[in-house]
Amino acid sequence: MTAQEINDITGGELIGSPSLVIDSLNRIDNAGEKQFSFVVSEKYAHHLLTSKAGLILVPVSFKQQLLPGRSYILHDDPYQAFLKVVMYLEERRYSNPKKLSGISPKANIKVSATLGQNVYIGDGAFIDDNVVIGDNVKIYSNATISSNSRIDEGTIIYSGVRIYYETLIGKNCIIHANAVIGSDGFGYVRLPSGEYIKIPQIGNVIIGNNCEIGACTTIDRSFVGSTIIEDGVIIDNLVQIAHNVEIGEGSAFASQSGVAGSTKIGKRVRLGGQAGTAGHITIADDVTILAKGGIAQSIQKKGEYFGAPARPKRDAFRIEAATPHLPEMYKELKRLRDEIEQLKNKNKK
Amino acid sequence: MTAQEINDITGGELIGSPSLVIDSLNRIDNAGEKQFSFVVSEKYAHHLLTSKAGLILVPVSFKQQLLPGRSYILHDDPYQAFLKVVMYLEERRYSNPKKLSGISPKANIKVSATLGQNVYIGDGAFIDDNVVIGDNVKIYSNATISSNSRIDEGTIIYSGVRIYYETLIGKNCIIHANAVIGSDGFGYVRLPSGEYIKIPQIGNVIIGNNCEIGACTTIDRSFVGSTIIEDGVIIDNLVQIAHNVEIGEGSAFASQSGVAGSTKIGKRVRLGGQAGTAGHITIADDVTILAKGGIAQSIQKKGEYFGAPARPKRDAFRIEAATPHLPEMYKELKRLRDEIEQLKNKNKK
Amino acid sequence: MTAQEINDITGGELIGSPSLVIDSLNRIDNAGEKQFSFVVSEKYAHHLLTSKAGLILVPVSFKQQLLPGRSYILHDDPYQAFLKVVMYLEERRYSNPKKLSGISPKANIKVSATLGQNVYIGDGAFIDDNVVIGDNVKIYSNATISSNSRIDEGTIIYSGVRIYYETLIGKNCIIHANAVIGSDGFGYVRLPSGEYIKIPQIGNVIIGNNCEIGACTTIDRSFVGSTIIEDGVIIDNLVQIAHNVEIGEGSAFASQSGVAGSTKIGKRVRLGGQAGTAGHITIADDVTILAKGGIAQSIQKKGEYFGAPARPKRDAFRIEAATPHLPEMYKELKRLRDEIEQLKNKNKK
Repeated sequence: MTAQEINDITGGELIGSPSLVIDSLNRIDNAGEKQFSFVVSEKYAHHLLTSKAGLILVPVSFKQQLLPGRSYILHDDPYQAFLKVVMYLEERRYSNPKKLSGISPKANIKVSATLGQNVYIGDGAFIDDNVVIGDNVKIYSNATISSNSRIDEGTIIYSGVRIYYETLIGKNCIIHANAVIGSDGFGYVRLPSGEYIKIPQIGNVIIGNNCEIGACTTIDRSFVGSTIIEDGVIIDNLVQIAHNVEIGEGSAFASQSGVAGSTKIGKRVRLGGQAGTAGHITIADDVTILAKGGIAQSIQKKGEYFGAPARPKRDAFRIEAATPHLPEMYKELKRLRDEIEQLKNKNKK
Repeated sequence: MTAQEINDITGGELIGSPSLVIDSLNRIDNAGEKQFSFVVSEKYAHHLLTSKAGLILVPVSFKQQLLPGRSYILHDDPYQAFLKVVMYLEERRYSNPKKLSGISPKANIKVSATLGQNVYIGDGAFIDDNVVIGDNVKIYSNATISSNSRIDEGTIIYSGVRIYYETLIGKNCIIHANAVIGSDGFGYVRLPSGEYIKIPQIGNVIIGNNCEIGACTTIDRSFVGSTIIEDGVIIDNLVQIAHNVEIGEGSAFASQSGVAGSTKIGKRVRLGGQAGTAGHITIADDVTILAKGGIAQSIQKKGEYFGAPARPKRDAFRIEAATPHLPEMYKELKRLRDEIEQLKNKNKK
Repeated sequence: MTAQEINDITGGELIGSPSLVIDSLNRIDNAGEKQFSFVVSEKYAHHLLTSKAGLILVPVSFKQQLLPGRSYILHDDPYQAFLKVVMYLEERRYSNPKKLSGISPKANIKVSATLGQNVYIGDGAFIDDNVVIGDNVKIYSNATISSNSRIDEGTIIYSGVRIYYETLIGKNCIIHANAVIGSDGFGYVRLPSGEYIKIPQIGNVIIGNNCEIGACTTIDRSFVGSTIIEDGVIIDNLVQIAHNVEIGEGSAFASQSGVAGSTKIGKRVRLGGQAGTAGHITIADDVTILAKGGIAQSIQKKGEYFGAPARPKRDAFRIEAATPHLPEMYKELKRLRDEIEQLKNKNKK
């Protein structure tokens, strides 16, 4: 593509050669002479001096600090403009799931299953009894949709995903490879002998619309009732959502985080990487748990929390700042003790 | 079902209308007017005042605190009575694995494999050379059982499970979707240059009877000898059991916990969520590691441990209680130092 | 095998009966009378007194401390000698992947895919359009190689692995079962409303030569450009490598560790189990993060780091040593405060 063509997509102001040829995109610190990149804010402006990118999208406010002889696109909102280019390419690229269609003759589909229009089902995918697949759903090779499940319009299910029976998944979700949804909750009665008796997990999992679920993430079915993921929840790879958990709209879970059984997570809650919560607690709306945080008790107040066990970020950071002094404090305390003893002895004299 | 029918299953005492219609089960704080729920102990008795559940199973001792006009089942052991109802339903439900049978013509089964009676093997499952499958084993679609492995009677292997070669799995186990058993241990010799030379992992994995293994959990084969999981061990989703590990009877591993190589875990040991142990250590019987705990050294004494590195729970909780005071302690120490200096100066005068 | 045959493989000096029959290998503390084991250094020499192993490989320097009437092989480098035996067996064992060949008629291979010589492709494996498979590549049953990907010579891809489109994998790699490579990075724009807009992840993943990737490990594709794993990197099970990450040669990641988006990891870096790094940071060459470490900021200096947030090991261990004193320190501080007040009062008089 030429610089002119890219500029036309963004609707910005082109500075430099309209005929400059660009062959790919890259981030500003990695981009080469034939690559297109972007800087969204002053914070990253220093990259302009060292970047080799052929064409750089920048805020209009940068106009005075551009290098002579280089090519730029000036735009009011460079991030959105860059996304326009990305989406333009996404539409045209080879592997766009939305372009897939057709039912493979090598897919294994039970006759009682119902398939919508413009559905794609890949080789070796298994669609069990009474499954209902909505329009424009794409199910990649070797995925499993078990009996009585329903996948609504526009949802994409990648290769190797395992959907257990009676799972309900909303519209326009994306479920990445080898994720497992609806496996049994980890529920047992422990006898006095220490032996575990399995409690049959006879509930299910319900996932709303516009959710994304990462690769190898696991979401367990409920003991009774449902494990519920509301609309617009995004979940990264290798995340555990246990049985009976409820997650409010627009919450986000970074990789390797986990939510234990029966916990209720509010709306727009965010868990950082490797963070976790105890079971049977409640997290209020708009709570953010930083990476590696451990939540042992319910949180009623929105805000950021840090540490394991987690504390409000401000408190936790003050503790963290004092922590390196601990060894010297220990020694200092002993010195003070000695000096006080000396003072006491002197006073006695 | 009617309240009378449910009461008959439990063998309890029905209070209220025998003809009350119940359509599902739910936990006490979520149940609605047509749902059946239960309260097992005084600890949860407060839910009786607010629950909307149509029918609630309670201990006989609650008889005096029931609300008028509502329906209850009184029972000596309400938890077991509730399980009776759950199991009654489990038996009758659509997707009971035990009801599956038949070998799919689309399964890929080597002629040297041996299959027991009443076995189910789903579409696209791969059963390799010399595999021995016991009676009543159920292997779901797209699972892989590699060569020379043996799966004993009654074990259920869900979709996408990968069993590497020479794995031995006992009776009545449940292995959830996309778990991997028998992958190579993470064993290398590191040369002085920093380069890693892979050590062939020529041992195997042996799993006892009545074990449950969660979705996307990984259990590595041993370098030599066997990685051993004894009877009645329960393992949640996304857990790592490394090579040469040995786990005693009745131990339990919550989600995202991990055991490093060659560690020996005793009987009835419990690891909380996201807890982990170092390699080459020993954990005594009846040790419980709370969530996120990190075990760096062997533990000889049973009991609860907390923190990373983990300490006996009592010690760890005392440290935890003192920790928020750390910033003020740091300031206080400086103040005391100043005051002592002043006292010393005064004494000199 | 006899002791003589084993000694011939190692090229060592046999002490004891050449005709002694050995039926398997095991580690020194577990080995029985018909098993072969080894001790590499003085550190493990105490096992010689208690081991029941039939034949033990030891350093030449141990000659004076051997037990009478037992069988040993003396060798200059017992570890390498033991590996020779292991590799000898590996070559001859049933399930050596390198011995597999042939394209299963039940594999699903698009006509536009290109296959090298001596390739193995198992039942139900899916090879999509324009995939290029090098010589001696082995792809196990039910694995997925998506369009435009390239797998170079000698690489082994186990069952259930999911390779997304446009992934490039080098020579002689091993990718374990159910690993996922090339899934979408966790990239969104968050609107002021809290709603997430997905950023199409249009980059890819590039993996070098001689890498090993564990079971259920996930490596995300880049937003733009590539997620890059250089030569000789070893990654254990259940590890997360996020989008745009770059990992230098010879780095090693223990199980359940994770690297967040856009972080650059140097050469020969090691992350312990359950360790994690923040996104958009840089880790220098030869840094080791101990188990459970959390890296919040870039590390410029090689060495070992411990804790979350991680500190240089020496500092972290000093803090760790002082930590148990915290509760008593808190009380002591109060006592000192009281005593100082008393001294001040006395001085006033």
